[in-house]
Amino acid sequence: MVLKSTKLDTEALLLEETLFHTANGYLGVRGNMEEGFDDPKSIRGTYINGFYDTVDLSYPERLYGFPVQAQRMINLPDIQTIKIIFDGNELSPLINKPAEYERTLDTKEGIAKRHLIYTVGEGTLSVIYTRMASFCRPELFLTVLEITSKNLSGKLELKAGINCDVRNYTNPDDPRVAAESVRHIIMDDAKTLDDGGYVCCSTSASELEVALLQRYKATGMDISTRATATGVEINLTTHINTNKKYSIEKYSILSDSIRQPKPVEYALGAADEYIKAGAGALLAEQKDYMDEFWHVAAIKTEGNKEVEDTLEFNLFQLLQSTGRDGITSTASKGISGEGYEGHYFWDTEIYIFPFFLFTKPEIAKALLTYRHSIINRARENALIMGHKSGALYSWRTISGSECSSYFPSGAAQYHINGDIAYSFMQYWYATGDIEFMAQKGAEVLIETARLWLDVGHYSADGRFLLHCVTGPDEYTCMINNNYYTNRCAQANLKGAVTVYEMLWQQNAAGHAEQATGITQEEINLFEKAADAMWLPYDEALDINPQDDSFLEKPVWDIAKTPNDKFPLLLHHHPMHLYRFQVCKQADTVLAHILFEDGIKDSTKRNSFDYYQRISTHDSSLSRCAFGIMAARLGLENKAYEYFYDTLITDLENTHGNTKDGLHTANLGGSWMVTVMGFAGMRLNEKGLHFKFMQPGMWNRTCFKINYLGRIINVQMERDKSKLSLEKGQPVDIYVNDEKIRLNQTPLELPHT
Amino acid sequence: MVLKSTKLDTEALLLEETLFHTANGYLGVRGNMEEGFDDPKSIRGTYINGFYDTVDLSYPERLYGFPVQAQRMINLPDIQTIKIIFDGNELSPLINKPAEYERTLDTKEGIAKRHLIYTVGEGTLSVIYTRMASFCRPELFLTVLEITSKNLSGKLELKAGINCDVRNYTNPDDPRVAAESVRHIIMDDAKTLDDGGYVCCSTSASELEVALLQRYKATGMDISTRATATGVEINLTTHINTNKKYSIEKYSILSDSIRQPKPVEYALGAADEYIKAGAGALLAEQKDYMDEFWHVAAIKTEGNKEVEDTLEFNLFQLLQSTGRDGITSTASKGISGEGYEGHYFWDTEIYIFPFFLFTKPEIAKALLTYRHSIINRARENALIMGHKSGALYSWRTISGSECSSYFPSGAAQYHINGDIAYSFMQYWYATGDIEFMAQKGAEVLIETARLWLDVGHYSADGRFLLHCVTGPDEYTCMINNNYYTNRCAQANLKGAVTVYEMLWQQNAAGHAEQATGITQEEINLFEKAADAMWLPYDEALDINPQDDSFLEKPVWDIAKTPNDKFPLLLHHHPMHLYRFQVCKQADTVLAHILFEDGIKDSTKRNSFDYYQRISTHDSSLSRCAFGIMAARLGLENKAYEYFYDTLITDLENTHGNTKDGLHTANLGGSWMVTVMGFAGMRLNEKGLHFKFMQPGMWNRTCFKINYLGRIINVQMERDKSKLSLEKGQPVDIYVNDEKIRLNQTPLELPHT
Repeated sequence: MVLKSTKLDTEALLLEETLFHTANGYLGVRGNMEEGFDDPKSIRGTYINGFYDTVDLSYPERLYGFPVQAQRMINLPDIQTIKIIFDGNELSPLINKPAEYERTLDTKEGIAKRHLIYTVGEGTLSVIYTRMASFCRPELFLTVLEITSKNLSGKLELKAGINCDVRNYTNPDDPRVAAESVRHIIMDDAKTLDDGGYVCCSTSASELEVALLQRYKATGMDISTRATATGVEINLTTHINTNKKYSIEKYSILSDSIRQPKPVEYALGAADEYIKAGAGALLAEQKDYMDEFWHVAAIKTEGNKEVEDTLEFNLFQLLQSTGRDGITSTASKGISGEGYEGHYFWDTEIYIFPFFLFTKPEIAKALLTYRHSIINRARENALIMGHKSGALYSWRTISGSECSSYFPSGAAQYHINGDIAYSFMQYWYATGDIEFMAQKGAEVLIETARLWLDVGHYSADGRFLLHCVTGPDEYTCMINNNYYTNRCAQANLKGAVTVYEMLWQQNAAGHAEQATGITQEEINLFEKAADAMWLPYDEALDINPQDDSFLEKPVWDIAKTPNDKFPLLLHHHPMHLYRFQVCKQADTVLAHILFEDGIKDSTKRNSFDYYQRISTHDSSLSRCAFGIMAARLGLENKAYEYFYDTLITDLENTHGNTKDGLHTANLGGSWMVTVMGFAGMRLNEKGLHFKFMQPGMWNRTCFKINYLGRIINVQMERDKSKLSLEKGQPVDIYVNDEKIRLNQTPLELPHT
Repeated sequence: MVLKSTKLDTEALLLEETLFHTANGYLGVRGNMEEGFDDPKSIRGTYINGFYDTVDLSYPERLYGFPVQAQRMINLPDIQTIKIIFDGNELSPLINKPAEYERTLDTKEGIAKRHLIYTVGEGTLSVIYTRMASFCRPELFLTVLEITSKNLSGKLELKAGINCDVRNYTNPDDPRVAAESVRHIIMDDAKTLDDGGYVCCSTSASELEVALLQRYKATGMDISTRATATGVEINLTTHINTNKKYSIEKYSILSDSIRQPKPVEYALGAADEYIKAGAGALLAEQKDYMDEFWHVAAIKTEGNKEVEDTLEFNLFQLLQSTGRDGITSTASKGISGEGYEGHYFWDTEIYIFPFFLFTKPEIAKALLTYRHSIINRARENALIMGHKSGALYSWRTISGSECSSYFPSGAAQYHINGDIAYSFMQYWYATGDIEFMAQKGAEVLIETARLWLDVGHYSADGRFLLHCVTGPDEYTCMINNNYYTNRCAQANLKGAVTVYEMLWQQNAAGHAEQATGITQEEINLFEKAADAMWLPYDEALDINPQDDSFLEKPVWDIAKTPNDKFPLLLHHHPMHLYRFQVCKQADTVLAHILFEDGIKDSTKRNSFDYYQRISTHDSSLSRCAFGIMAARLGLENKAYEYFYDTLITDLENTHGNTKDGLHTANLGGSWMVTVMGFAGMRLNEKGLHFKFMQPGMWNRTCFKINYLGRIINVQMERDKSKLSLEKGQPVDIYVNDEKIRLNQTPLELPHT
């Protein structure tokens, strides 16, 4: 799809900066204007996924174990600026209204463009900016500037460069963005090159280094460069003749000391290579990458272009947002803004991971590799939180240590452990990658399982209980036996047993045993606790209560709450919210999606109805879960409603804060409703399952699934679906709980 | 008693600064050395009760309703310094070891002294400092310096004055003291007088003003004064002859804009008056005040001087610590140090108020008047916390607004409302002061009762429930139906009904009705909720569980916890503690002391045994409650053990932090164990009760009780007790649940 903006609305600019940003999982550049470094209304941002500074956390009352330092993804020196001066007059849409203005994001090509035409005297100057964050060369941010003159001539100057005088965006009144402003970037060196220059910077506290280099290819233009106290100035000048076209290629290279021992040298070498390849080849390479991506990832919703386009937009943004180097994950806002300070949450494992697992499993594997890479931080965190053994993943983090400073809806969300374990198990079921489970997966599963044994205890009547934790719903905190948490702890314990026994049988348990010291005795304890896990159930309502005392509380009157009092968390003291049956987001309903085992259909349906009435969906992680469950329950209209709200969250800015970055979990959620909801896909120890339900809002849904190395082609229609293997050996899957063998010949299955 | 310190141990100085401090409920001066302004190891402090600056509270994640400003009792300009220079050499115990050194605190006289003898050449110089914070003239801090020369002569210089270059004490690693250092005092003006000088200061944020004035009476000495950028320098010089005695009277006057519209003018006038009276008369006046105080307040424990002396020390400190002007209360550390930043907690109402109510009821009344004076802040606080109506007193405050920044063990302690209501009801029962109840008491009772209606709700089976609050035990937070809270909410509701109906019958309900809009319908709702209040009870154990889910949790192994891991809160994440049955302090046991109605003896005993096993007494509010209950249960040795630990907490610095100030609640607790424990005194709607139990560690306990305007004389012995009226008309009281009429003739009652 091509996202288009055809007029310059300064009120919409902050939003567009996010929507039109360009990123590749490593670097992210907001869709700021090249012309507008000084624009005060802009959040001008350049980021590297996982590149952080540490900030001190100070509390009026600091209790034991409260984190004293957090990581923050920092805004890097500005590399976007290219001011255009023609005959001494600056040309900028912020100053002179251009005759024509168009901005596009092409999700098929993986590039963003702006095209402006300025009237200058009798003539015009056409300016096209093309931007690309290269998926094939992660360190490269490429800008191609094409200037075409018509009926005019004069002096053309381009003022560009690298500016280190930058800060992060702050808002002390919104707990969802950073509260105070600190100068994170210290410029250590600025050097010029014949055709550009570079800066070396370090972070003020975390002592990381980053090099930002910029070089130009601009035939027919003079380049002058100058190092300053705040960066590098790069000026390009020429005398432009009438009806002439200039093409300027700008190569910006970012390299950091987390990935490279010598960032500057690496950037210099990479620049040589990329300039040699040239913009044309690099753009073509991007197109090839995108073609290959869309070949599997695309979802066609025949008869509903809006849905298809928006899904494409969402999935493209996921591709832009997600780290794939094994040392990063997907920040809750991707690399598109500074909301939640670039932290990784459970969003990745539960909402984003599934899309990659089934369309681009190498990225899914990289996400798990990241979690494994920080397991020692999780072990340390477990000790801080009072546990004798095991690993407790941090609720929000970049480098692994806990960054949540309000623990009741932060560090108390122990389900993060179960969420991560769930994603490892899903990976195992989807790939059968024994090597990975032996080297990394088992260690994570065992250490996370171990934690539950220490958190929980047995009641007098033999139930295994988990006290004082917080489930996904952040309007109900520090409660006993959160159904979701207990459910995912149970799966975590069982998963550790399953994988350990599998490895043991394959004679491949050595590494896991060495890394964890696991014994058969402990495996037995895992099994015992899983079997004894207490899962609250209310007989009369036939629902799973969210926790032990949830149903005792009065019900919040959502209908009577004025619209301007949402999200509730911005208008009510948390303790007040905790006293009511009111949910910020899907909790039990999500558990019923992820862990279906042994739940009666009636319980799912009743729980859905019950929690639907008391959920505000103030979290963008909520509606997609309700959408999946509605689809699975056959509630077509409801499902479509939730799906559509999920679909357009960022594009329509329905939460009002997309300016701070995309809602990446929600983006993944739109894929989940489609595939896990409408197509009823789920993956468990038995295998891959579908239960199709084509909604009436379009005719046919076509998508592909990567499963055990195969590519499965799915065409879902209103009353039947077609399945076939596009690639790979025949494989068994389940449709409506019946086993079928898939091969290259399409199988037509009427819906029951 | 006379507290003595006979050697200068620099390690003990911080502790002595607290123990030997001088205060009068209005001003407090730590027992710092006159000679040692520059001593870096000292916490040099001068305070006015309730005189605060505001400090900004900043949170890494600030949620709705978190207080953004707190009050902090501030360290005022130093008025203590008097350096002694003899023939050019400074004489200070911090520099030259004196030949003799003695420091005393005389609780009978209400003064503190230091006596030092320096050897100078062949002669000696004797120096006696006498300090008094006048109970009769609250603004006066008097120092009398007597210098006697023996076999020497030379030039004597005294360098004194007022120094505004002061800060508060900070320790970011201890949640119990302030975290960051701010300059709170701004000197606006410094003026000299012939015999002294004064400064006018304002607070940096709260915009309060304070004047500190100092004048000297020093016959035979020359006085020179000089205003500087940081205060006033006052130098006194003379040529001292051998065997001569100099007496220097220093009058320090503190006056602040909370009490006086023109603090400087007030201080100037007061100084004239006090100087005219002279030190001798002022000291005599103090002695008279103390005699009158001790006449009722003294407790004799015949045969155990240590207990008697320590009790006297404790009660004297209570007298020093407690505000009595109707706009202040008792800070948890009194006016003796900066721990808990000079904040008032429930400590006052539950632990300190009873002593005053029964020995000096005018101070008890002033404490209640303070609570009434901030009722509008409590109404505002209720709104912030999400309640539609009623008043919710702040957990910790000076001027009324909430200063607790960690709400789970702060603002969540809603029982503060019930504690305050309890003290109003006790006042009513002890004084029968209808006027006060009509003008102030009823309003407080009704507004606090009203809050419970909004906090709570009815379960399906008709029980009134209070969800998500924190009881007294801060190791168990944000739980449902804390027994203590529900019990005191019930008494609060009933108390409002009782007092309203009493006033209504007396035709005196007008003011309360006007101030609160109370109606008979609402009174009925109070009654209904009180009757339906859910009070957790465990049949099998015959105990009241601390809350709904308390007994489900595993028991913390206190025996296996290393000694250096106490207090637990400094060594464990709060959430970890919340998962265990482990109590910081008395909770249910305290409820059984305050609200005895309808509790079986067996339940009290079983609960005592149960909670005793799981309480760490990490709070200094705990042991006294266990002591009272042990005495009431007839557990003599246990009771004495708890009593003794309570008794010596500050004097022996058993909590290790008396340097930050006295544990005022615990001081009151030592009175409570004696009178409410051993003598089994309680006061309820029926009247005053005793159940005597003289512990074997001494022979006879003599004390007096002010009850309904009478003075009751109690002499408790091992097997009998004698009761008589010292003053007032005959009155009925209960001994061992039997009504007896007391008059001037002593009544001898054998113990059953």
